[in-house]
Formats: sequence, C-alpha cells, structure tokens
Amino acid sequence: MTATFNRRDLDFLLYEFLDLEGLLAQPRYAKHDRAVVDAVLDTAEKIAVEQFQACAAELDANEPVFDGRGVSIIPQVKTALDAYSQAGFPAASFDYEAGGLQLPCVVAQAAGAMFYGANISIAAYPLLTTGVANLLCAYGSPEQKALFLPPLLDGRFFGTMCLSEPQAGSSLADIRTKATPAGAGHYLISGTKMWISGGEHELCENIVHMVLAKIPGGPAGVKGISLFIVPKLRVGPDGAIGGPNNIALAGLNHKMGYRGTVNTLLNFGESGECHGTLVGERHKGLQTMFHMMNEARIAVGMGAASAGCAGYLYALEYAKGRPQGRRMRDKDPASPPVPIIEHADIKRLLLTQKSYVEGALALLLYCARLVDEQKTAGDPARRREIALLLDILTPIAKSWPSEFCLEANKHAIQVLGGYGYARDYPVERLYRDNRLNPIHEGTHGIHGLDLLGRKVRIAEGACFTALCRLIRADIDAAASIESLHEYASDLAAAVGELEVTTRVLIGCGDLERSLANATIYLDMVGHIVIAWMWLKQAHCASRHLASSPDQEPEFYRGKLKACRYFFVYELPRARAQMSLLQKLDDTCLTMAAGQF
Amino acid sequence: MTATFNRRDLDFLLYEFLDLEGLLAQPRYAKHDRAVVDAVLDTAEKIAVEQFQACAAELDANEPVFDGRGVSIIPQVKTALDAYSQAGFPAASFDYEAGGLQLPCVVAQAAGAMFYGANISIAAYPLLTTGVANLLCAYGSPEQKALFLPPLLDGRFFGTMCLSEPQAGSSLADIRTKATPAGAGHYLISGTKMWISGGEHELCENIVHMVLAKIPGGPAGVKGISLFIVPKLRVGPDGAIGGPNNIALAGLNHKMGYRGTVNTLLNFGESGECHGTLVGERHKGLQTMFHMMNEARIAVGMGAASAGCAGYLYALEYAKGRPQGRRMRDKDPASPPVPIIEHADIKRLLLTQKSYVEGALALLLYCARLVDEQKTAGDPARRREIALLLDILTPIAKSWPSEFCLEANKHAIQVLGGYGYARDYPVERLYRDNRLNPIHEGTHGIHGLDLLGRKVRIAEGACFTALCRLIRADIDAAASIESLHEYASDLAAAVGELEVTTRVLIGCGDLERSLANATIYLDMVGHIVIAWMWLKQAHCASRHLASSPDQEPEFYRGKLKACRYFFVYELPRARAQMSLLQKLDDTCLTMAAGQF
Repeated sequence: MTATFNRRDLDFLLYEFLDLEGLLAQPRYAKHDRAVVDAVLDTAEKIAVEQFQACAAELDANEPVFDGRGVSIIPQVKTALDAYSQAGFPAASFDYEAGGLQLPCVVAQAAGAMFYGANISIAAYPLLTTGVANLLCAYGSPEQKALFLPPLLDGRFFGTMCLSEPQAGSSLADIRTKATPAGAGHYLISGTKMWISGGEHELCENIVHMVLAKIPGGPAGVKGISLFIVPKLRVGPDGAIGGPNNIALAGLNHKMGYRGTVNTLLNFGESGECHGTLVGERHKGLQTMFHMMNEARIAVGMGAASAGCAGYLYALEYAKGRPQGRRMRDKDPASPPVPIIEHADIKRLLLTQKSYVEGALALLLYCARLVDEQKTAGDPARRREIALLLDILTPIAKSWPSEFCLEANKHAIQVLGGYGYARDYPVERLYRDNRLNPIHEGTHGIHGLDLLGRKVRIAEGACFTALCRLIRADIDAAASIESLHEYASDLAAAVGELEVTTRVLIGCGDLERSLANATIYLDMVGHIVIAWMWLKQAHCASRHLASSPDQEPEFYRGKLKACRYFFVYELPRARAQMSLLQKLDDTCLTMAAGQF
Repeated sequence: MTATFNRRDLDFLLYEFLDLEGLLAQPRYAKHDRAVVDAVLDTAEKIAVEQFQACAAELDANEPVFDGRGVSIIPQVKTALDAYSQAGFPAASFDYEAGGLQLPCVVAQAAGAMFYGANISIAAYPLLTTGVANLLCAYGSPEQKALFLPPLLDGRFFGTMCLSEPQAGSSLADIRTKATPAGAGHYLISGTKMWISGGEHELCENIVHMVLAKIPGGPAGVKGISLFIVPKLRVGPDGAIGGPNNIALAGLNHKMGYRGTVNTLLNFGESGECHGTLVGERHKGLQTMFHMMNEARIAVGMGAASAGCAGYLYALEYAKGRPQGRRMRDKDPASPPVPIIEHADIKRLLLTQKSYVEGALALLLYCARLVDEQKTAGDPARRREIALLLDILTPIAKSWPSEFCLEANKHAIQVLGGYGYARDYPVERLYRDNRLNPIHEGTHGIHGLDLLGRKVRIAEGACFTALCRLIRADIDAAASIESLHEYASDLAAAVGELEVTTRVLIGCGDLERSLANATIYLDMVGHIVIAWMWLKQAHCASRHLASSPDQEPEFYRGKLKACRYFFVYELPRARAQMSLLQKLDDTCLTMAAGQF
C-alpha cells in the first residue's frame, strides 16, 4: 500500500518548523518528550495503515445501510475504531484532570492527519467525539462532565453536532427544534435535524448529540438558540445506560463521497419523550457551540489537507513508476520510455499538489501549536495575542485547505490519467471525499463572511493587526537570508496591499457591497497566509542546508522549490484578487434573478 | 424535471450570435430553413428530455455489468438510442450523397448539446459513431463506405476509437497492437486496447472499431502506425453480418462518473483470426485518426459545456426556490427568509457558472459554424483561413470547457450545499461525469503541448496570426458601441500581450523549457478566447437592446452582466499567467524526482 501521509514531512513540521521540543519543555508537558511523541505517532501510523487505510476502498464501495430498524456498517469500521480507542487516542490532548493524556494539541493533530489521510470516513467519528468532549470540558456542568466525559474519552460513547435542519442549513436563525423546560435543568427536545454525521450506528455503546434548539418564549433568531446534550440512550445519575431516548432515524443521506460516515436525518421526541440537559447558558447556545465548531473547523481543514496529501503521495509514486513517453530532446522512438515524472507537466501537477498540501499542513499544525501555546504562555498579553490570531486564522485554516487540497486531488487524478478516473485507484475517492469539506462546518461562503464581516473588524481590527505584525516579523527574519530575499520582499508587498485592500473594504459604507466578494477575499488572504507558511518553511530549510548540507539535502531543496513554486505561480493570484476587491465591484451583487 | 439545457440561449447563439439564417441561405442548405431547424431542435429536445434525461440517475446508479459472457445495460439506454436513430440524428450533418440529411454542423452540435446535457453516458455512443462515420467519409475506400456508412448512419452499427493500450496511454508511439498483412488489403489484428468506450454491448447490430496498429516492418514510433476498420462481427461483401471477429472483452473499467458508457479492455485476435482492413494509407494512421479525433474533441468540449450548463440550470432553479437567510440590511429575525439567489455569494457562484457555460457553448457553436462555412465558402483564401482557425481553436474548444465547466459543476454543488453533495440531486453526478473530460481525447497537458508546441508554430505562425486578426476585427466592431469600449480595450491589450508572450515562448531556444508551462499557456489563451466570445455576445445583446429595448430586455442585460463578470473577474487571470509565462520560469521543469 502506498503511504497516505508523509512521516518525514510531519517530523520536519513538528520538530524543525514548529520547535515541538521547545513546547515539550514547558511544565504542562513535563511527562512527555520526543521519544513519547514519536511512540504516539508510530502507534498512530500503525493503526492508520493497518486498520483505517486497509478498508478504505471497501468501505467506500459498501456504505452504511439502513434496513428500517438499524444501521449496518462493514465490521472493519468497529474494529478500527476499537483499536483507535484502545490506544488512547480519544483522550490524547485532554488534560490529566479530565482523564486525558495531556499531549500537545499539535501532536494530536499530527496523529489525526494520519488517520484522516488513511480513511476520513472512519476518522470522522472520533473527530466529532473529540469536539463534543472539548465542549463539555469548557462548558459542561460538573454533573455533565462526570457522566459523559469518561465514556467519550475512552471510546464507549461517540458524539455528534446537531445544527442543520431540513429547512435551515447555514441559516441557524431559522431552526425550529424546540426544548421545553421540564424542571430541574431538564428539557424535552422535539424537532428534526438534517445532515447529522454519526447520528445512528452501533459502533459504540451510546451516542451523545449536541443539539441546538429554541426554548419557547426566548428571543427570535440566533439570540434565542440554546445548546443541549441529548443522548441516544438515556444515562442514569450513576452513569448507567438506560432505555432509548426517542431519537428516531428517519433516513440516511447518500453522498458522493465520505460514504463510510453514516449521515442521518433524525427526529427527536417524535414517538415519546426525548430528554436533554442544557449546556452553558440559556440562549447562548450558538456561542457555546462555536467552541466545538472552531475545533471541528481546524480538524476539517486537516481532513482536507490529509486527503490532499494522500492523493499527492499516490500520484507521486505512480509518476515515478509509470514509464510512458520520452524526453523532448530524445528523437529516437526506439529508446525506452521514461517514467512520467520526467515530463514537465507532470512535475507541475505534482509540485502544485506539494505546495498546496504541505502548505496547508504547515498552517494547520501551526494553528494547533498556537492552541498549545495559549495553554502554556505565562504572559497574558501573549495569550491574548494568540486568541486574536486563532480567531482570524480559523476560517482560513478550515477553508483554504478545503478549496485547494480538493484542487490537489483533481491534479492527482490527472497524473494517473484514465487510471485516476477508475475506481480501482484511490485518487478519485479522495477527490469525492474532499468535495464535502467546502460545504460542512460552515460553507466556504459563510467563512468568507466570517472573515471579512466579523474577524477583520472585531476589537478594532486587532486580529488583523496581530496577523500582519506576525507575518512581518517572519518576513524580517527570513530576509536575513540572501536567497530568500526576493520572497520576503514579495510577501511584504502582498501584506502591504492586503492592508490597503482591507481598509478599502471596511471603509465602504455599504456593508452588503463590501461583503459581496467576501469569498474572494477569503481565498486571497488564504494564499497570502500559505505563502507566509512557505517562507517560514523555506527559512527552516535554508538554515538546515547551511548548517548540515550533507543531511538529506534533496528533501530540503524540495522545500525550497515548493516555496519558489508558490511565490512564482500562486501568489500573483492574490495580487490580481486584491486589485479586483479594491474596486468594490458589484457585478454579482446587482445581478437580478431574472437576468440569469 | 429541471431543464438541462437552455433553449432560449441556444436560439440566441444560433440566430443572433452566429447568424444561422445567413448560413442557411447558402445553396448547400437550400432545403433547410429556420422552420426545419426549429423542428429538428424540438425533436431533439423531446427525445433528450423524455428518453435521455429520464433515466440519467438510474443509469448512473446501475452501470453496465459484465457477467463473463455479455454486457448488460439497463433497457432504457437502448430505447433512448433507438429513438435517437429513428429520428434521424446519426445522419444529421452528413452529406446527401453519403445518405445524410445535410444539416449544418452547428445545428447538429446544438442538438448534441441537448443530448449531452441530458445524459452524456448515453450520448457518448452516437458521439463516437458520428466520428467513425465522418472518418470513413473522408478516408474510407468506396467499398468501406458502401459497407459501413449506411448502417452507421441509420444507427444499426455503432463505432469506437481504439487508440490507448494498457502500457501506452498518451504515448501512441509505444502501441504494440499488430496488423499482419493477409492479402487483398486484409490484415490480421492482434493486441490489447484499453479504455475503449462503447467497446462491447448489445445496443445495436454490430460495433465498428477504428483501431490503431503497427504493420510489422514499418518505421518505429508514430510514423509506423496505421489505421484499421475492425468490426465486432464480420461483414460480408454484400453487407450481411457474419460470425464473431474474435474480439474478446477482457473486462470493464469502473469509473467515477460517465458510468453509463461501457468502457472496456479488448483483446483482438486472441482466440482466432481477427480481420481488419486498412483505412487511408499505410503508416499514416495517426493523421487519419486525427480527422476523427478533431471532431471528437469538439464534441468532448460540447459535452463538458453541456454538463456545466445542466448543473448551472439546476443550481439556478434551486437558488430561486430555496428560502434561507435574509438580506444583510434586514435585521429582523422574524421576517420571512429570502430565496438564496438574493445572497451575493450565491449570485457570484451562479454568474461564474453562466459566464463559463455560455462562453463555452458560444465557442463550440462558433467552431461548428466555421466547419459549415468551410464547406460553403467560395473563396479559397477564406477556406484556408477557416482551416487555420479550426486548427488553433480545436485544442482550446476541447480543453477550456473541460477545465472550466467542471469548475462550474463544482460551483453548482456549492449552491445546493449539503443537498448538492447528496446523490439524490443531479449536480454531483454531473461533476463526476465532467471530471473525465480533461483526461480523454487527449489530456489537458497534451492539448497544451499541441497548442504551444505545434499549432502556434505551424505555417510560420499563420494559425496564430489568423486568430489574432479575427479577434481584433471583432474588437474594432464592438468598440463602436460606447458601453463596450472598456471591454474592447481590455481585450485588445490582452491580445497584444498574448502576441508578446507567444513570441517570447517561440523565440526561446530551449524547446523543453519553452513548453514547460504549456498547460498554463493553454488555459490562458482559453480565457482570452472566451473573453472574445463574451465581447461578441455583448455586442449582439447591445444591438438588440438598442433596437428592441422592450423585447426580453432582462435576457439581454444578463448577457451584458455575464460579459462584465468575465472581463472584470476572469480576464485578469490571463494577464497574471502571461506575466509568468514571459519569465520562462523553469521551477517545475528543474524539480528533480528526489525532491518531491
């Protein structure tokens, strides 16, 4: 089997790019050192390859089935998830006091990348479960924590997020699910939730749904939404699992990809009482849920990057092993064909993929490293700065990989040609899987609005300012290296132009017009951020080549080439987009429905 | 059922944009007038909707099956194809003397667009058959024509193209299939062909394979390739169908999309003699086959544009009918939600699709119109100019729609959100279908090499010069209209820059380096050509609005807006690409295999 993740690159990102050992030196991580981290990653690698990747094609061809009573899923899925849980991964990044292993988030995300790349359809179950556990850690009552955290962290319970309803996808203001107070913090939940991943299965003992609902009499719109914990099977005060909580599976959704993750339409309280308890404050459910969604969004970005990476590595191996055609200067048709990796256009397809997936992975691990630093930084100002950075980077870390690592998968198919389009090869499956990512956990358009409509404006632009300052500091550091000077200067120019563009957009008195091209703004900022990630990687690589020129020089030269590719071929796209954005063009906005 | 093609737009393109009535006034088309054409399109529409579209989802979910003996395909496919044949479509654009209806090619392509958009998996069978018949018209011996043309034109025989082999996809120099002379113009064919669409089925009486093979003793490489007509069942000198010709089905390929078109691995002459006859000259098979491939390439582009159009129309209808969210200025959460087409980002997704699919359709019908004009033009100089234009436009007309109408399908999914990702809705199927188009009939990369390595260089750049001259003439015409002045001037600047860029690339002494970014060149020229198509459409629309301001003004204003979108949002991409190309950047070319 071809590897679906690049352990060498993960090691580079963790130890050289992100100085994981510096982080491990913090008291919070005193029990962990590099040997521990490597052992964790070795275990993840083994389970990812042997349990997750091994059944990826079979699971795609045999999606979960609902026979009117229960959901059946091929048995390898439960086996894989049991191995994952037994190895302790559900608890990896949780605090000791919550029953976790207190590993850095960046290590958990690196392990996650292995599972996601190997088989995102299986990995989605613990991905959601970790989000629910995180949310309970932050907002759960002591009783809720005591009841639900232990089984979530040892893999006996899995979690879901129940936001969307059939009539309200992105528009949560319009949800209709009701939570009627039933005394003592208990509520009766009734309503229908759509697109619920992991909503019904028998992979574990119980399912914990985090449900957005409205308490009657509350404010209209998003200000009247509350969050509830609603288990599939009732849980007694002693933690014992009781009878069904009246959550009925109304049907499964059949998707283009991501087929192994059961996706459901659920009716709450249709045929009897469905009990839930409030999490956090009444009517503050959306803010509470965002705690979970922000984590889930970074994980979605990591899923997209990992699918991109898996496709890239497969295409790379294929291109090295497939002889076809000759170099242009070779005019002798009787000469043996060369591997297709010798053809310039195949190199271009591969280098594009490398720059996208390794750039995206760098950003996602960088964000995870910020999460860890937020927990360890002593200086409150530094903690606040990190919070600002995570606020502005989250929509980018979710969205850029979702868009461009899907593009990487498209290129992987192209490298394989007809074989890439055939279901016998994994690249078309990765492409289908990845197409979900710009849709779920907030659509691409929603994240554009979040970035330009909210994140760059909050706290008088403090998030945006913090980001620009940080990028400039890295530019200055990199500019000290002669060979990086050109990139540093290109990026500095782009950041300057970004500031101008952002000022123009924020300064526009017409909010609707200023946000009309928010998605283009999102893609553009993403390109600048990824260019920054490449400059930082190139900086690491240059230092290595200067100090240890004989140690794996080709790996580090590859990083420099990918950086060059990104700056020469990709960054100019952002320049063109900024020029468009500064015009406050309203062509799309003013298009009338009857003109289409 | 939502329409999968826009008859109003087809009428605009045929009668206003391309002056079909002017063409029909030529003696060649004396028997046809607008009423005849409209009746043909009405019939196509009826069959496309009732027979092709009606089973598209079912066919996708139930691909052809090989049980070791035969291939079974759901019965609606044969019913649809019988209706297609009985209505005369296989013979539509063929000359009277060949047994055809001598309709203009542009009319046949417009009808094709309806069938392709409704169900490309079925339409692929006659698409290939038309190509074979065209090839026989041009190169077949009188005997071959007499035997094969009548059954191909009445739908009793279908055709295939057999080029690829398992070890040689794009590299035809390396094919191994052998044709051993057996006297009297007969050959014994032996070898294996891969990716053969329509290679085995029972949809008609016989299958006519056009097979590339090498006659032993001939030159190595592509100069030793000859073309053979090889029927599935032997055909006697009187046209009577005989016994099997020993072409064995070795297996079916299972694809991501395009599932209804059976795709086969065929063994020729494995278990007995397989007879073929030479078409055209010995060792000139590739040139001969290109006659068919050039037609097939325009049809592939039309298939891509039609899938893009079908997705666009579905997304448009959905966006008009799906209420969700509110306008930004509406702060009252209790107000009713608006249809999502009122949201700027949905408009952007739709307008992008409109500009891609209607731009692509315009180009493809424009090319078809050139084919017709080539047959009717009295002036040999004009005929030569048209030949030059078709030479240079063919790789673009195949490739640009394949790339950008796939992107349109990606956007259609995005408009529907989670529903778009579900298999209950057609947009994900169209996206899967369309992903094939940049791969077959010459990959995207191959067409880049064809354009930059061959087409812009042949005849001392005569093709390229003819194209630039023609675009400039249209720019001059459009510039006379005040409101188009800005676009005319943008396009003039782009064409000027294109000439500079092309000179730099051709002038580079290092062929490998000059071609390293040929795919980017292809995409870039495509964007300029589509901008030209939009300027021409805007010119028509402006004239209409000036002369008949009360007749369907919104339709024509929509054309102007789409033109504006393309010039403001899309054309700048070409400028950035030209700037890159002029640098003769070798980042990709010099990337060593070990650096990935």
